[in-house]
Amino acid sequence: MTFAEINPPARLLMGPGPVNAHPRVLRAMSAQLLGQFDPEFTGYMNETMALYRQVFQTQNRWTFLIDGTARAAIEAALVSVLEPGDRLLVANIGRFGGLLEEIGERCGAEVVSIKADWGQVLAFEDLKAAIERVRPKLFASVHGDTSTTMAQPLDGIGEVCRANGALSYIDATATLGGMDVAVDRWGADIVTAGLQKCLGGPSGSAPITISDRAADVIMGRRHIERGLGAETASGRRIASNYFDLAMLMDYWSERRLNHHTEATTMLYGARECARLVVEEGTQARFARHAACGAAMAAGLAAMGLEVYGDPAYRMTNVTAGLIPAGVDEARVRAAMRTDFGIEIGTAFGPLQGKVWRIGAMGYNATRPAVLSTLAALEAVLRMQGWSAAPGVDAAQAVLAERDLA
Amino acid sequence: MTFAEINPPARLLMGPGPVNAHPRVLRAMSAQLLGQFDPEFTGYMNETMALYRQVFQTQNRWTFLIDGTARAAIEAALVSVLEPGDRLLVANIGRFGGLLEEIGERCGAEVVSIKADWGQVLAFEDLKAAIERVRPKLFASVHGDTSTTMAQPLDGIGEVCRANGALSYIDATATLGGMDVAVDRWGADIVTAGLQKCLGGPSGSAPITISDRAADVIMGRRHIERGLGAETASGRRIASNYFDLAMLMDYWSERRLNHHTEATTMLYGARECARLVVEEGTQARFARHAACGAAMAAGLAAMGLEVYGDPAYRMTNVTAGLIPAGVDEARVRAAMRTDFGIEIGTAFGPLQGKVWRIGAMGYNATRPAVLSTLAALEAVLRMQGWSAAPGVDAAQAVLAERDLA
Repeated sequence: MTFAEINPPARLLMGPGPVNAHPRVLRAMSAQLLGQFDPEFTGYMNETMALYRQVFQTQNRWTFLIDGTARAAIEAALVSVLEPGDRLLVANIGRFGGLLEEIGERCGAEVVSIKADWGQVLAFEDLKAAIERVRPKLFASVHGDTSTTMAQPLDGIGEVCRANGALSYIDATATLGGMDVAVDRWGADIVTAGLQKCLGGPSGSAPITISDRAADVIMGRRHIERGLGAETASGRRIASNYFDLAMLMDYWSERRLNHHTEATTMLYGARECARLVVEEGTQARFARHAACGAAMAAGLAAMGLEVYGDPAYRMTNVTAGLIPAGVDEARVRAAMRTDFGIEIGTAFGPLQGKVWRIGAMGYNATRPAVLSTLAALEAVLRMQGWSAAPGVDAAQAVLAERDLA
Repeated sequence: MTFAEINPPARLLMGPGPVNAHPRVLRAMSAQLLGQFDPEFTGYMNETMALYRQVFQTQNRWTFLIDGTARAAIEAALVSVLEPGDRLLVANIGRFGGLLEEIGERCGAEVVSIKADWGQVLAFEDLKAAIERVRPKLFASVHGDTSTTMAQPLDGIGEVCRANGALSYIDATATLGGMDVAVDRWGADIVTAGLQKCLGGPSGSAPITISDRAADVIMGRRHIERGLGAETASGRRIASNYFDLAMLMDYWSERRLNHHTEATTMLYGARECARLVVEEGTQARFARHAACGAAMAAGLAAMGLEVYGDPAYRMTNVTAGLIPAGVDEARVRAAMRTDFGIEIGTAFGPLQGKVWRIGAMGYNATRPAVLSTLAALEAVLRMQGWSAAPGVDAAQAVLAERDLA
């Protein structure tokens, strides 16, 4: 039994991710492979590190890729820092805060949470007080939690953590390359992401950056794989081989100690994603996402859909609109997909059946993508018997005001 | 700071892997993305499962992909079965047996090993006696260990394991799609691989197959992620979220419980790798690899290079040749790469500096790849002052005898 060649239908992916890959990224991924220790390939590895330093806005030497999806990098960060019994403080503003808690539990950590209601973020003073009270080994927070579309402000967090002897970890999966992920300004110790949101690449490679301070803690747990060397630190061996950041640093350093076989094609793609960010400029890119997010929100509101969440802290790249009463949300999404080729997202947990989540990220953070989505949604809602007011004009006004071509 | 677009030099990758990707695989990977719950995409997921059942020669329902490199799937298998204190018996015939031991240790298992000298395999009677004596929860073995180029015979292993209450795990990273990986005939419970060897794809996606018997054990440890459901089994929660096979089975089943975002492009590539195997036919493919391996060995021997390892149990897809005395092995590899664009491999541990490992796998298991490599090596050795006898004729004779076009 076999099947025909890959031939996916055209889709405009306007959900909370994945989004369409930039064509340049797919083109880069079509290049032929190299051996992992070929000087040409290790050169590409080094260039990828240099590019992601710019994307993460950091000077961190240790800035590289984890070979897996976004949550692979989350787990690598947590398991490489946390030993059983260590205290982890999680700032939980949505489902992906819950993921940090559950990974922390699997690491055997003692997990303490500070929670915001869905649709809200945590006040800096509350975070500070929690860190001072709990004094965790690691403080962990999601930057933009797509489950609620809220972005947690993080300026000053590193200083508070350092003053309390804590390391900090930030999950920037949904925001890197789209919102201001300012690793060094935040003072965050480990920050991770994925390609399939604002970076405009396929899922499967996860950028990570690690401060020297965090690297020291991780290297204190370094146990080189048998047959490759004898160096062993005194710390407890990291519970995972694949996610052992000490071994990954040895692999990405000039030592090039063998670990996995680097995912060549995904690295080509990740490198191209970063090249696109650097060429556009991080600030221009943030402005583009902010303009599209504001236009989407204005369009939804003009159509009569309430925009979800505290407006002061909404992510700019994913917007949630409340589903009008009496509308069959699954039928709307199906009609968007089959009649217009546009995917929008549903929601999890307390928001399931209550909101649609609509992203405008990476390659899809553009005027045509935003306006086409609004026009299609308006038409579909009308077909479903709900009389949506026009939303496109309001969105266009926002885009004109923000000068987005 | 930015860098030029990806533009790798042409390389014929004849090391122990990665090898060149089949152009059809790279082409499939250039297709645009789909949302992970789009019916078109879940259709591709189901087709990928059906295709890999054929590649693994199994009826196992649970046959899917792990989003990571080959060792990601190894760790997923071990961490999902082994709880702290469980006994793991490892058949160690080389470096990758050592990897199984070290991952088992990180899982907290009590690890017992039975070792063969490098260049040898373990006798079935010795494996059987060890399983009866140790009575492990899990028996684990590498099929083809590229560090020694030996392939461990595995027929009958499942029956012995079942008779002794053990599950069995086989690492077929280096052999799947090239040698006879017969999951159901072996009676193996979990078998994993990677794309970058005989499957002719890029590293970064790792096929896995799981028997119902193993799935029962894993499902006994199922703890659904918070916010997605309340079902919890009585067994100890798996120590990894990313590698939790129970959650991955829920994601790949019709329940489609959200876990990671499937690595879309890698899935397209993995699916195409399997389509190529199914179109060619597994037996024809094994014969092709066997012909190329025999030709490579004959060519090396004719040149005057002793072929390493017990000839009765050599892998067909990677051949090791002893480095002649007085030859600078690093200079030979560098000349192969820079003058001929051909990569051959060095070795680890006890074989470091003693052998070259030369692969002919997947897209590179062909007459031109084998003969070009032999001709280049002969020329390079001569340039280095070592008078190699001609090797190409002997290789051609083998290929003619085996009828490889």
